[in-house]
Amino acid sequence: MRANSDNLAAIFTPKSVAVIGASTTPEKLGFQILKNIRDAGFKGPIYPVNPKATSILDLRCFPSIAQVEGAPELAVIIVPAGAVPATLAACGAKGVKGAIVISGGFSESGPEGEALQRQAVEVAREQKIRMVGPNCQGVNNPYHGLCASWPLLTMQGAIAVVSQSGTVAAALMDWAAQEGIGVSALVSMGNRADVDEADLIEYFDSHAQTRAIALYIEGVKDGPRFLAAARRATKPIVVLKPGRTEKGRQAAESHTKSLAGRDEVYQGAFRQFGICRAETLHELYDFSKALAYLRRPPGQKVLFVTSSGGCGVLAADVAAGEGLDVAPLPEALHAQLRSSLPRHFVVNNPLDLTGDATAKMYKDVIAAAKGSFDIVTVIFGDPIVGASEVIDRDHPELVVFLGGADVEREEGRRLHARGVPVFPTPERGMRALAQLARFGLPREKAH
Amino acid sequence: MRANSDNLAAIFTPKSVAVIGASTTPEKLGFQILKNIRDAGFKGPIYPVNPKATSILDLRCFPSIAQVEGAPELAVIIVPAGAVPATLAACGAKGVKGAIVISGGFSESGPEGEALQRQAVEVAREQKIRMVGPNCQGVNNPYHGLCASWPLLTMQGAIAVVSQSGTVAAALMDWAAQEGIGVSALVSMGNRADVDEADLIEYFDSHAQTRAIALYIEGVKDGPRFLAAARRATKPIVVLKPGRTEKGRQAAESHTKSLAGRDEVYQGAFRQFGICRAETLHELYDFSKALAYLRRPPGQKVLFVTSSGGCGVLAADVAAGEGLDVAPLPEALHAQLRSSLPRHFVVNNPLDLTGDATAKMYKDVIAAAKGSFDIVTVIFGDPIVGASEVIDRDHPELVVFLGGADVEREEGRRLHARGVPVFPTPERGMRALAQLARFGLPREKAH
Repeated sequence: MRANSDNLAAIFTPKSVAVIGASTTPEKLGFQILKNIRDAGFKGPIYPVNPKATSILDLRCFPSIAQVEGAPELAVIIVPAGAVPATLAACGAKGVKGAIVISGGFSESGPEGEALQRQAVEVAREQKIRMVGPNCQGVNNPYHGLCASWPLLTMQGAIAVVSQSGTVAAALMDWAAQEGIGVSALVSMGNRADVDEADLIEYFDSHAQTRAIALYIEGVKDGPRFLAAARRATKPIVVLKPGRTEKGRQAAESHTKSLAGRDEVYQGAFRQFGICRAETLHELYDFSKALAYLRRPPGQKVLFVTSSGGCGVLAADVAAGEGLDVAPLPEALHAQLRSSLPRHFVVNNPLDLTGDATAKMYKDVIAAAKGSFDIVTVIFGDPIVGASEVIDRDHPELVVFLGGADVEREEGRRLHARGVPVFPTPERGMRALAQLARFGLPREKAH
Repeated sequence: MRANSDNLAAIFTPKSVAVIGASTTPEKLGFQILKNIRDAGFKGPIYPVNPKATSILDLRCFPSIAQVEGAPELAVIIVPAGAVPATLAACGAKGVKGAIVISGGFSESGPEGEALQRQAVEVAREQKIRMVGPNCQGVNNPYHGLCASWPLLTMQGAIAVVSQSGTVAAALMDWAAQEGIGVSALVSMGNRADVDEADLIEYFDSHAQTRAIALYIEGVKDGPRFLAAARRATKPIVVLKPGRTEKGRQAAESHTKSLAGRDEVYQGAFRQFGICRAETLHELYDFSKALAYLRRPPGQKVLFVTSSGGCGVLAADVAAGEGLDVAPLPEALHAQLRSSLPRHFVVNNPLDLTGDATAKMYKDVIAAAKGSFDIVTVIFGDPIVGASEVIDRDHPELVVFLGGADVEREEGRRLHARGVPVFPTPERGMRALAQLARFGLPREKAH
């Protein structure tokens, strides 16, 4: 009965959308979601459904889904929980293929809600409708102008964000938008009554714009299916799963009414199936960014090139702690750089160009040193104008930028626009590099 | 011979400043620093010194410090290393009381530079000049309009940033400015030939605007003096000291030519003298922010109030891991909230107001629950308009805001403007709270 992930197309790339429970009240989600779909630039017809309005946001409004003049492929549903099963049935009759159920009041709210959720799933399966939610923050596909979620975010990128928490998903997409790096899609899974992480791993693994999957889960819905999807996946998967402590586990079970399970079991499975585990939200973001935009270095030998001795020290300390090889410069390279660089530059690893560094000096030193190391970490520790031009777009170094204030933000945006990820501190950069060395796609497989 | 920290006044609050080595070339530090002093709004006379210019940035330029028509109290020195001792002597003759030596080429560059540095110190002591540097990124006192550093940053706050790395100092001040929280002062200590961390701890401990000291060091200059200053300090001190690994230690010794020493020795000393240790740059910032703006909770019982179940889980997991007490709600409070709140709200700890939360609901719930817990952590996990109004200015809760995009940034700025710190993720907030519970000033001592 369960359809495969192919038919998630109606959810991510529908030709037309109905918003059932669209509202005229700006504070309500039924208004905000409609507005976000419109403002994100959705190209197809949008059909607000609300029996009490004739038009919302200048869009013609229909009293019911049955009366829509057109053929909505996707329905975004924001009606009271009790009305959801009937709404899904009416959607099916209308030919709707995908549903995103925002409404809460299902399994998360007790036994009655649980019964209602079972009913909704039955209807959806009968009607051959794939359903995200209920009790979720929706779906955002910036490549399709489809922000069926909130807040309004539209920046396109290469990370697919899949989350049991709407806030976590929104936060990641917001960070990515702020940095000018974007996401390939966002899915807030809510109660996962139908579509779950296994479906989504499968879908995004064959999704052209996605190069890494960032997953927040408090417990997997179906262990064997999840592991099968993870085993088949060819793209890196990064997971943040809380519940290391007993209190955290209890909170997770109370939140999603799913079995959080013993952490060691998860840890073992993640290890076995090559899933990269993040310890914090920032790591979930950083690791996904590294794995989506950089390739696995051929080995562990890392060179640091920096204008900030302090940042070099911080980076080397974390890198060594992560098992990376902070190797000395080969003799010939040392001699070459020593003779060509000013006397006060520290020709060592970290290679400290001091506060006198210019973009050109970085460029020359990286070019000379690159062949002797598996990866070069470039730390711009000052307002270095032109820093973004230093980095090779095709085989980029790992870049950290800090202490540069406005110049840092401008050059960072330029790097992100060129598809080169930038990390905000030496420590975060080195933690990400360590994951890249373990879980990164090799260069020959690069997209 | 060594003067006490009282006479650092010439460095932090001079009546007049000479910039020796001021430049007409916009790319040069001698130009940028002069411009930053002027643009930060320094109120007293500014005297550029450069034998080849008659005016820079519309300021009258003098050929030498001796020929300055006026009485500079502070000299910012950006001349070649070899000229620094003579320049200091001339400064002394002119009555200068403080010097900030930006120039490199001293102990960090080998034996000759080391000799030059010893000479500079001798001259400074003879002339009773206190000296920051050499080889540093200067001093910034936003309360005095004195940005004798770069980049130009002027936001006033309560954290004194003291650093062996100019980049680390600049990054912290930039983050603080971006968030609208500011710093009380910034000192890039460079080679610490005269002024060192012990002097600065002493100075900032009696500095009215400073409420916490953020310290980045790769090794202490004088162990006993440092420990004596730390023991006497009444304000919280947060330290980031890399060198946990052998490679990190080597990099530190190569960077600052100081003995980094064994990490266990430092760890023991920090513990004994009540110094809060950060593991990363972000922690150095977060912990300092918490300790400067919040008071120690009377106990370890923490309640989470959130609109995001996921964030509640993440926070509870880290809090429990840090030894905080994620205690259940007292029965009476549970009954009271259960009867007054909508049925789908999770009345538990974390207390999950769901995506339907409004600012008013937060306010009511916090008011009801506050007395039963030592600290309330408020997590705004959605774009909650008016969030900033929820927080009590005098006894603020610990606030985390994420997933709110533009609303998050706006409300965050408002909270910071009111002196309430906001943390960007549940994990960073909880790590900071754990330090607050250990190292925070008690409420009765609050400034």
